[in-house]
Amino acid sequence: MITLPSQLLEQAVEELSKMPGIGKRTALRLALWMLKQDEQHIAILGTSLIRLRNEIQYCSKCYNISDTPFCSICSDPRRDQTLVIVVKDIRDVMAIEQTGQYRGLYHVLGGVISPLDGVSPDDLTIKPLLNRIADDEINELILAMNPDIEGDTTAFYIYRKLEKSNLTVSTIARGVPVGDDLEYADEVTLGRSILNRVPYSNSNK
Amino acid sequence: MITLPSQLLEQAVEELSKMPGIGKRTALRLALWMLKQDEQHIAILGTSLIRLRNEIQYCSKCYNISDTPFCSICSDPRRDQTLVIVVKDIRDVMAIEQTGQYRGLYHVLGGVISPLDGVSPDDLTIKPLLNRIADDEINELILAMNPDIEGDTTAFYIYRKLEKSNLTVSTIARGVPVGDDLEYADEVTLGRSILNRVPYSNSNK
Repeated sequence: MITLPSQLLEQAVEELSKMPGIGKRTALRLALWMLKQDEQHIAILGTSLIRLRNEIQYCSKCYNISDTPFCSICSDPRRDQTLVIVVKDIRDVMAIEQTGQYRGLYHVLGGVISPLDGVSPDDLTIKPLLNRIADDEINELILAMNPDIEGDTTAFYIYRKLEKSNLTVSTIARGVPVGDDLEYADEVTLGRSILNRVPYSNSNK
Repeated sequence: MITLPSQLLEQAVEELSKMPGIGKRTALRLALWMLKQDEQHIAILGTSLIRLRNEIQYCSKCYNISDTPFCSICSDPRRDQTLVIVVKDIRDVMAIEQTGQYRGLYHVLGGVISPLDGVSPDDLTIKPLLNRIADDEINELILAMNPDIEGDTTAFYIYRKLEKSNLTVSTIARGVPVGDDLEYADEVTLGRSILNRVPYSNSNK
């Protein structure tokens, strides 16, 4: 890497290039762009990032990102409170909401089980999910993790925990091409895969 | 765009997507990545951007970015103080420094003349350059703008201002492919184009 003529610039480039998909050259381009912006604009940018990280709240029920103790979906009385779809992260919530086909609630795991990345079931919101199932009147749980090894492992782990309950556990139809991420699926395919969900069993794998 | 479940998230995505080359989807990916980082790490990121914009200084001589009143190049007694290369921005300084072929000083214009983008000569450091030429003992000025319309216009503008002086005005050899940006040229081509510089005249255009 080129030596930069300023510590301030060097630190900004260093920090920017820690972001995923941002290399040193892109980071430098962004930093130089910032130097040409209004001071106030960059103050808003920096502050909004710090506030995002410090003040963000999660719904106490479904762990979706929320500015209120319960998110707008969980506190909507028109949604089916007996149906819960389990997803990896908030981007999946947004993708499913956009289909307009789903009227139940969510449960955001905050990741998937991945021993290679050091993510164990305890790092996810699986325990809160099991408590929620015990406490609330939930009839059906839809497992909608991405169709890859980690997603399948996570789904199977949750399924095993609930095998003896009389809860219906289903999984979204594999209309979503195997190996693709949920958030990139087109709305029709993703919507249909929720409507055509099938009972969860080992044979889905 | 998808409706986001949080004002904080929405503002962060909005601000991130103002950066060049960052779309809404990438901005959301970056914002969600930030939520998974240490609070302290994001505080450092945000603060470093704000400090970069607020505290950055420019060398009073060459307008290179610098943490001190005079940059490390201008204050290096081993550099040839009689030779000045004029470049568009600091990335060009870094590209030329990396060739290891240039031992003179710089003058950073801070852009190029571009009526379409509303950049006039007064928005650039052309006046300070002319003052510098009048005050300092400079024998030769190398014009090293990018070989495009704006770069050529800027070079010609400066050349006209100096036509009657007895300063040698040269331009780097067009070893750099026309239409390409200086910063992407390979080190050998860029270094040679400085060594093989030719007197500036209309016929270069």
